[in-house]
Amino acid sequence: MKRGNRYGTHRVIAPAGSLPQPAQKISNDITIYDNEILIDVDYLNIDSASFTQLKEEAGGDLEKIKNKIMDIVQERGKMQNPVTGSGGMLIGKVEAIGEALKDKIDLNIGDKIATLVSLSLTPLKIERILNINTDIDRVEIKGKAILFESGIYTKLPEDMKDTLALAGLDVAGAPAQVMKLVKPENTVLILGATGKSGLMCSCMAKKMAGKNGFIIGQARNERRAKFLEGTGFCNKVIIADVQNPLNILEETLKVNSGKEVDISINCLSIPNVEMSCILPVKDGGTVYFFSMATSFTKAALGAEGVGKDVTMIIGNGYTKNHAQITLDLLRESKILREILNEKYT
Amino acid sequence: MKRGNRYGTHRVIAPAGSLPQPAQKISNDITIYDNEILIDVDYLNIDSASFTQLKEEAGGDLEKIKNKIMDIVQERGKMQNPVTGSGGMLIGKVEAIGEALKDKIDLNIGDKIATLVSLSLTPLKIERILNINTDIDRVEIKGKAILFESGIYTKLPEDMKDTLALAGLDVAGAPAQVMKLVKPENTVLILGATGKSGLMCSCMAKKMAGKNGFIIGQARNERRAKFLEGTGFCNKVIIADVQNPLNILEETLKVNSGKEVDISINCLSIPNVEMSCILPVKDGGTVYFFSMATSFTKAALGAEGVGKDVTMIIGNGYTKNHAQITLDLLRESKILREILNEKYT
Repeated sequence: MKRGNRYGTHRVIAPAGSLPQPAQKISNDITIYDNEILIDVDYLNIDSASFTQLKEEAGGDLEKIKNKIMDIVQERGKMQNPVTGSGGMLIGKVEAIGEALKDKIDLNIGDKIATLVSLSLTPLKIERILNINTDIDRVEIKGKAILFESGIYTKLPEDMKDTLALAGLDVAGAPAQVMKLVKPENTVLILGATGKSGLMCSCMAKKMAGKNGFIIGQARNERRAKFLEGTGFCNKVIIADVQNPLNILEETLKVNSGKEVDISINCLSIPNVEMSCILPVKDGGTVYFFSMATSFTKAALGAEGVGKDVTMIIGNGYTKNHAQITLDLLRESKILREILNEKYT
Repeated sequence: MKRGNRYGTHRVIAPAGSLPQPAQKISNDITIYDNEILIDVDYLNIDSASFTQLKEEAGGDLEKIKNKIMDIVQERGKMQNPVTGSGGMLIGKVEAIGEALKDKIDLNIGDKIATLVSLSLTPLKIERILNINTDIDRVEIKGKAILFESGIYTKLPEDMKDTLALAGLDVAGAPAQVMKLVKPENTVLILGATGKSGLMCSCMAKKMAGKNGFIIGQARNERRAKFLEGTGFCNKVIIADVQNPLNILEETLKVNSGKEVDISINCLSIPNVEMSCILPVKDGGTVYFFSMATSFTKAALGAEGVGKDVTMIIGNGYTKNHAQITLDLLRESKILREILNEKYT
């Protein structure tokens, strides 16, 4: 066997010099290199933005969606939606492990794993699509995939449903980053606290800030505020308009004795909310942007414009042990488990 | 006098609820509020992206540029280029200080200051344009501007030319952030080390990392590498292609005993270089993006795709004492002073 590049550049067909994710086409040859893992795939969990686009393009016709997926993978060697650029995750069983990795990793042939790198860079060969569940963006297939040496994955836990684990792992970066970021006694504002990543971040922030910490969750209306209050993840819930930064600032100050917060966390999925994340944070504080709708320039120029000395962090979907941290959070919080079970399994 | 909003929202005309920067139109009435400062403006330093656009649109015709500037300020109440969205800075003398600020700030009537908030949010009224210097994007005017309570500024130093001070202050956030970020013994990679902010960041990084630190500067060709070596700001200079992340990684490893760096700093002005900034950094390290051409999603998905546990920071143009820090750096480094003097004064 040959040794491949740690990041998989040996499989890039075009353009030359590219990494597998931005590449147009990669090789999905199932003969593995010395430092690759071969996976017998059970199903793909297509990224929500991608699946929505596929459904719309196909007018909801399942056969058309199937054909489109087959075409994309045939053309690119990976399931990367050409319109959205996004991928998703997969679940499967380890079929082979390259010689160079055998003694370095904690995997055995037959282990059931979820990949934690995007499908947008994962070599994939589909033999047949068996079924599509449009409610949870899941595509059951017969096929194989390749993991590079830098590829991250997690064994699926035996104490919860695969679907529950997947729902959590899908946003694993968020609660794991919050765990590292939030310190005891911190005051934290979570914007978009009622969505999946918002709930997980709130739950983790509460735990990390401890009994002298103060977690403020933002909801957009009465109904969602009630739901959020019911979880107990926040010390206070505010109803405020994220499109109106001064409204967010005022409502935050009201519940926090007139003080700005130490940390704000953006779990919203809409654009133009950078200033709503920046204004309520005190000088020396931190703004954490998880939302993919964040604009780099709006954040950079916005903070300068109001003279805010805050550290602004780009949400990294990966951090060490993020899968374990997320699964443990699901094990710890019965309420979180129940909410995710109801919505995603 | 009335008390205005700290961030200047009392002057926003449209759209309602907006902050002054994203606003379409703000009031440039020169009657100040209780917490505002009135400035008698000497000249505007138009942001480079904006000035380039104005020159191109006018086909280089000075009269047309003048008219365009007058039109923009008439229409918006501020000098914000409608195409680029950017502004610039201004220099002028303090003409009046609102009652509520008088005892709180270290300014006196007549002090010569540079504003450190963008012209894109600064109320401005131009009576007449006196002169335009297209080489250094400077517009001499007769007019007035307003600073909000949150507005930042610096008194111009008496020991250096205004033009030298301005050239440095223009990118003041960068070296000041590097001062806070880089610790003794750090290994730092500066991408785009030969440009203005790159040189200032290299100079500051060298100082902060100390004699056991290691600064690597990236240049794009032999000629620029020679120039950078001549400054003494870097321990090693590499010639590598920022569009090719693996090339950047390899050249960095070559000069750093095969090890990844602690911190990388993006001082480039071109897009699609996120992976070149991320790949050479070790797990637990930091990537600092100063470039306004940075894509939030490319950075976020890129780091996840290669499983890099790095902290990615959005360059904030403001941090406490950034003007002072930058002017002091110019005072300390004769070489830096000479380079900036030659290019910008």
